[in-house]
Amino acid sequence: MFKIFSLKGGLSIVDGFFCDGVNVGMKDSPTDGDVAFIRSDTPCDITARFTTNRFQASPIKHYQKYPKDFKTNFILMNAKNANAMTGERGVEDIEQIFDKLSTYTPLTNPIMSSTGVIGYRLDQEKITSAFDKFDFNAKESDKTARSIMTTDSFKKELAFRVELEDGSSFNIAGICKGAGMINPAMATMLCFITTDASIPKDDMEELIGSATDNSFNKISVDGDTSTNDTVMLLANGVSNSYNKEAFKEALDKITFELAMMILKDGEGANKLVAFEVKGAKRDKEAEIASKALSNSLLVKTALFGEDPNWGRIASTIGASGVECSEESLSIYYDNLLIYSDEFRELDKEREDRAYKIMKQESFRVVCDIGLGDGSYTSYGCDLSYEYVKINAEYRT
Amino acid sequence: MFKIFSLKGGLSIVDGFFCDGVNVGMKDSPTDGDVAFIRSDTPCDITARFTTNRFQASPIKHYQKYPKDFKTNFILMNAKNANAMTGERGVEDIEQIFDKLSTYTPLTNPIMSSTGVIGYRLDQEKITSAFDKFDFNAKESDKTARSIMTTDSFKKELAFRVELEDGSSFNIAGICKGAGMINPAMATMLCFITTDASIPKDDMEELIGSATDNSFNKISVDGDTSTNDTVMLLANGVSNSYNKEAFKEALDKITFELAMMILKDGEGANKLVAFEVKGAKRDKEAEIASKALSNSLLVKTALFGEDPNWGRIASTIGASGVECSEESLSIYYDNLLIYSDEFRELDKEREDRAYKIMKQESFRVVCDIGLGDGSYTSYGCDLSYEYVKINAEYRT
Repeated sequence: MFKIFSLKGGLSIVDGFFCDGVNVGMKDSPTDGDVAFIRSDTPCDITARFTTNRFQASPIKHYQKYPKDFKTNFILMNAKNANAMTGERGVEDIEQIFDKLSTYTPLTNPIMSSTGVIGYRLDQEKITSAFDKFDFNAKESDKTARSIMTTDSFKKELAFRVELEDGSSFNIAGICKGAGMINPAMATMLCFITTDASIPKDDMEELIGSATDNSFNKISVDGDTSTNDTVMLLANGVSNSYNKEAFKEALDKITFELAMMILKDGEGANKLVAFEVKGAKRDKEAEIASKALSNSLLVKTALFGEDPNWGRIASTIGASGVECSEESLSIYYDNLLIYSDEFRELDKEREDRAYKIMKQESFRVVCDIGLGDGSYTSYGCDLSYEYVKINAEYRT
Repeated sequence: MFKIFSLKGGLSIVDGFFCDGVNVGMKDSPTDGDVAFIRSDTPCDITARFTTNRFQASPIKHYQKYPKDFKTNFILMNAKNANAMTGERGVEDIEQIFDKLSTYTPLTNPIMSSTGVIGYRLDQEKITSAFDKFDFNAKESDKTARSIMTTDSFKKELAFRVELEDGSSFNIAGICKGAGMINPAMATMLCFITTDASIPKDDMEELIGSATDNSFNKISVDGDTSTNDTVMLLANGVSNSYNKEAFKEALDKITFELAMMILKDGEGANKLVAFEVKGAKRDKEAEIASKALSNSLLVKTALFGEDPNWGRIASTIGASGVECSEESLSIYYDNLLIYSDEFRELDKEREDRAYKIMKQESFRVVCDIGLGDGSYTSYGCDLSYEYVKINAEYRT
């Protein structure tokens, strides 16, 4: 038995970790941070998941140069420049930035993490000008979470305290950024989770994998996968408290809720929709159908238009290539049946009820393929004029 | 040696074929046809390619009931209702409609082809009310091509006369419709091609396959694949003229140009872009990368914003899963190099030239992966506010 309490304060609640965010002139407003750090008092265990994009950004290449099971005490983060497609010089820039940083604070295997535009070298002078401004002993979670925002419209942070039956307790907190270029295969999003739980390294590896699969890998804003996606879990073990089941639940909660925040902040999105596919021949087929729905432009524009046009849902499932038949398929909005073999045409009364469901900020589209036990739920959003506007104008 | 001449007049130029289109009240304006036919004097050979969507519409199911190598003399077409996801009753409706039609004109294995909204039964009364209005001996190509339009903003028809060295000649003509739900795997589009060439049935099968692969299967408006996609070639052989090479060239020309018309009419699209991928390890990898580009929302919105943001192009190729490296990749707009290993940051002069290229109605994005000989070109368009508007409001 254990209890999980939600706390305010984000990263700052975890013992032994410090963080701050400052503006060095890359974002226009001097109150918007653009360079930030997370620092640990002692070198701590780290585990990470990175983008599946073949063009991994320079910070990821830099990370991968460290030996397996290395410990770190510092993550430096910046917005506005992804340091991607910058070649070997992109990695050298990071090394030179850390040379300079080491004159300010002791560093053990420092890590960099970047988000922003692809194809430009970091401005070393600007980035390193942050070091005079940083308070290395600050616990400024709010400023840190804001500093990594790009097209995000709100900061994303969460913190939990976990109390175990033996009277011990540990903390876990996370921040993330992401609003566009979001795809089930983890897209332009950065997520940093810190904990003082005394978690074994093997458990970190295992649990970050399942937590990522059940959260960031299930959301889609636009089906694109960036060069910089990163999920990191840092553990300093100072609480002397740990229970695997409790930690898993807290970690899953953090990653799932942060993922839902990214989706709610989906560029131009107004609705958060769960695409629940069940009754497929295999789980993998359910996943293919579910992700086809969350990525379909025709489904996404119908959601924006609040049009209970189940034909587009059926057509997308049919086009996804999974085994299915008109006769065995049923489609629901929340619990309202809108298509089945006996019930093919939407009458006025059910159409009106469907409109009401679609006007909600959040609802479920449920497709029962009726052929087996395979199931999968992915999460998506509508596609609005605003998405086009944001992405036509971004960068320039 | 042979010559191909472009002719005006669409379907009407081919000997032995008749066509007409009328309004029965499914489209609002009485001058917009919504039911049409193509009729052949004599039963003629037919070959067809249909959607890969698992939920094939009722007209396709009806077609597939005929024995292999059947001949037909009649295609009935309608807009506004796709007769898809309508179950066995959808096929019965077609049979009943043809029972009635047979009292007006002799029928040999008649075929129906529909486009419009999914999930509603055909209104038999309305459809059959067209039969009193049809002139079964008309050659109204214009009315026919217009009758199958849905969100199309212009009619799509082409006709060629092919003159052979032996002094004989044959004609080939095509109409098609399609503007949205268009994907490389052939989406809501109907295409009907008639010819009086004396083409062997085996050649029909072979040539319609390659013609479709090199045209309709290479275009994408929105990555969705409908339940009704159809390409049909009808040959009555009355010209007593045929040459395989000449016919192939004329057919390829018709299908490619009709496909480009669909793309130019892409819902809300302003630009037609060729995504030329070369230097991939295999042709299949080039195809995957090329189609990832023509379907990427971030690439499509950057095209709309006329933003020479090659980072999105590189990121999409990296995310597509094909083998590639930052060092061997080069990217061009038309012939302008905008990214290579040595040339990573866009200077002002090349950025200005890139802007100019992107302002054109049509241009090429060329990605040389630099690892092999695999190549593929797909064709796409930009994504504008207008696309969202059309698809949020369609149906209601």
